Amino acid sequence: MCYVQAQALYDFTAVSGNNELSIQEGETLTVINWNVGGGWVEAQNSKGQTGLVPEDYIQVRKNIVIIHILSKIHINFFSKAPNPEVYLLSKHLPKQTDRLPIYMGEVGPVWLYPQSQLDCVVADPKKGSKMYGLKSYIEYQITPNSTNRPVNHRYKHFDWLYERLTEKFGCALPIPSLPDKQVTGRFEDEFIKMRMERLQAWMSRMCRHPVVSNSDVFQLFLTYKDEKDWKEGKRKAEKDETAGVMIFSYMDPEVPDLEPTEVEQRYETYSRFTRSMDDGVKDLHSVSHLHWKRCTGPLQKEYRHIGKALQNLSSVFNTSGYQGEATLTEALMTTGKIYEEIAEIVAGQPKKDLHYLMETNNEYKGLLGCFPDIIGAAIEKVKDADRLVAMNKIAPQDKHNMAKNLSTMSYAFQAEMNHFHSNRIYDYNRVMQFYLQEQVKFYETIAEKLKQALSQYTNL
Amino acid sequence: MCYVQAQALYDFTAVSGNNELSIQEGETLTVINWNVGGGWVEAQNSKGQTGLVPEDYIQVRKNIVIIHILSKIHINFFSKAPNPEVYLLSKHLPKQTDRLPIYMGEVGPVWLYPQSQLDCVVADPKKGSKMYGLKSYIEYQITPNSTNRPVNHRYKHFDWLYERLTEKFGCALPIPSLPDKQVTGRFEDEFIKMRMERLQAWMSRMCRHPVVSNSDVFQLFLTYKDEKDWKEGKRKAEKDETAGVMIFSYMDPEVPDLEPTEVEQRYETYSRFTRSMDDGVKDLHSVSHLHWKRCTGPLQKEYRHIGKALQNLSSVFNTSGYQGEATLTEALMTTGKIYEEIAEIVAGQPKKDLHYLMETNNEYKGLLGCFPDIIGAAIEKVKDADRLVAMNKIAPQDKHNMAKNLSTMSYAFQAEMNHFHSNRIYDYNRVMQFYLQEQVKFYETIAEKLKQALSQYTNL
Repeated sequence: MCYVQAQALYDFTAVSGNNELSIQEGETLTVINWNVGGGWVEAQNSKGQTGLVPEDYIQVRKNIVIIHILSKIHINFFSKAPNPEVYLLSKHLPKQTDRLPIYMGEVGPVWLYPQSQLDCVVADPKKGSKMYGLKSYIEYQITPNSTNRPVNHRYKHFDWLYERLTEKFGCALPIPSLPDKQVTGRFEDEFIKMRMERLQAWMSRMCRHPVVSNSDVFQLFLTYKDEKDWKEGKRKAEKDETAGVMIFSYMDPEVPDLEPTEVEQRYETYSRFTRSMDDGVKDLHSVSHLHWKRCTGPLQKEYRHIGKALQNLSSVFNTSGYQGEATLTEALMTTGKIYEEIAEIVAGQPKKDLHYLMETNNEYKGLLGCFPDIIGAAIEKVKDADRLVAMNKIAPQDKHNMAKNLSTMSYAFQAEMNHFHSNRIYDYNRVMQFYLQEQVKFYETIAEKLKQALSQYTNL
Repeated sequence: MCYVQAQALYDFTAVSGNNELSIQEGETLTVINWNVGGGWVEAQNSKGQTGLVPEDYIQVRKNIVIIHILSKIHINFFSKAPNPEVYLLSKHLPKQTDRLPIYMGEVGPVWLYPQSQLDCVVADPKKGSKMYGLKSYIEYQITPNSTNRPVNHRYKHFDWLYERLTEKFGCALPIPSLPDKQVTGRFEDEFIKMRMERLQAWMSRMCRHPVVSNSDVFQLFLTYKDEKDWKEGKRKAEKDETAGVMIFSYMDPEVPDLEPTEVEQRYETYSRFTRSMDDGVKDLHSVSHLHWKRCTGPLQKEYRHIGKALQNLSSVFNTSGYQGEATLTEALMTTGKIYEEIAEIVAGQPKKDLHYLMETNNEYKGLLGCFPDIIGAAIEKVKDADRLVAMNKIAPQDKHNMAKNLSTMSYAFQAEMNHFHSNRIYDYNRVMQFYLQEQVKFYETIAEKLKQALSQYTNL
């Protein structure tokens, strides 16, 4: 994990009982958790005290990053690149049960999509407790559109589902991480709301995926009948041996095989794309983040100051004792108050629109970060096949098999990329539209407020 | 003069021949002239090189101000508080020629206002030269509405007029300073435009003043017939002996005398007002200045970055090779370009509206800074009169005279304050209206631009 040093920009006084940490302008802090959400981060001061501080109140020190321990992300990343050999050399035809067909669609290879798309609603977070109230937790209600019957799950069940999906499909499909676990302040309304929103986004994305949504484990999660059913299903899922690279043995492209050179070409195109999209979303994230901070920090402050300065001038003018002063002083006072309102509008806006753009962007950052990379290794293996045949390590038939299996892997990747692209276009189109709509409203609201102020002045 | 240390916020490369100074981020500079205008200041680097740098590129270091030499302003300030005794003890009745009557108006004591208000247009700056082209200068054309006949004046003539008005009226009326002289870059269009605008504002303010505008020297400046007329008038004006406190001997309040205690009360009310207005305009100036810097600096930069990030994402999406991508990539590209346009709009806006608010505010800062303060000294003298009578230094009749003359001074101040108030209400009403109108347009323009971007996306 990277621990980053930051500097407090303003004083902040903790509210007791909220896991907050008081900080003083200029103080050096170590950020220990960036993913608290809701505009908060968890930080530690030089005395070793930890707690939540508003993200906007601190500024990361450039060039002072302390590499602490290897991050969990890196471990995941390595575990996702296992040896493709065991699958490449396998000879069996695709299994007929649980078979995952790949068709040639208008846009290229595609998964088999269901007639009606699965979706679900995550709602109604409720505090539950176990062990006579010693342990408490939040339970969410999930209602799939297939049954319309709600089921309850705690975060740890989502986490269990995530582990199963990663084991089973992780070699072929990007399974995005769940919203982060968090210990401090996890019963605060703001946090619960944010986590629910992110679980909803995660579930919707999984529901939209034809392979994931059709799997037994995912269906179990959404539609188990009772506690017994859930427990039995859990046990069965945990015993599922179709994990890692062997997922490809279920895949059945109903299209002619691809030559390894073609596979390599397409792989390079996709890698290039995911890499540059990764840069693109990071860039957008960083400008959005800065914009958020500016709106809630200096800009809000500045509009407040303008408001105060005008109200102050109005008060001064009011003491002139001159007749005929009232209209101007009242107009200035109104204008000043309106600038204070604008300050609040400006500070509150990112939560209303930028938030969703950043969440979508963040989801894609996550997806790109867990895109399976096994095909690169598989290509190298197949390139090496001639040498292995010459050395009598594999039979010529094995080489043929490897190429065929590589072709299947490539089709799976292409189907997945096409799924990714169609979702990406849908998601960015929707979120940009929403963002711009809200921004238009935002600027129109400010214009309207200023018109109100303007109407207070005398027309000379 | 106060020389202020500043730090360069960004690199700036001088354009040669423009009197500019190259600076590097982090470099320490001494600002030697804040009043260059047009967003420039004159600075000196540690090597002693001087030149113009953009105001937005530097930040004043807090708490590091080097007091260098006594400022001209201070010298002026002291010269404006001469001994009132010579007038207070004078016995003659107000002169009948050049008499300056003061009436009781609706708002209290007022000057005699002319039937039609004088105004003039300062326009058409032209480069002239003398001494076979060795010395060149800018000549402005000034056309008063009284004659509609243009006269030409150089800056040094305005300066001459300012000196005469200060000598003649400075004890009773605030004569605001002219826009600053500047040596470097004085033939640059931007500078000439700014100076003309400020000379216009100064002339209009002088025209609006019933006492100033009616004076011989001011009329000479606006309506001289030819070079001979001008030179004769100049000589005469320079010989005018009605300077300093004796200006009060021309004042003739057509109202009952005020008791010294009443004079003191009113004086205190006015002083309190001018002091607190001085604080108010300084406060408004500093928030406006900060807002200007933010709009032309970080905000512009940020909108540009948002624009670039969106265009970048569009370019990346464009490489996906996925069908049906075009609408989104074009929409993102348009949105990105529109954010770049918004960056320019944001950066250009202060010049369009905040500029005028700041100019008006600045004029008032100047006026408040030169408000005559002689009455305070006069009040003290009159309070001391009893003692002087007891010591046989003055006659009882002198004491009576002093009180009567103090009353005249008070009426003059009251008439001037009322003139100031009515102008202030007019000016602030007008400039706030203009500012808000432009701000409404500004926000509406941005909303309109974003609507344009929004229309590019597919409605799903």
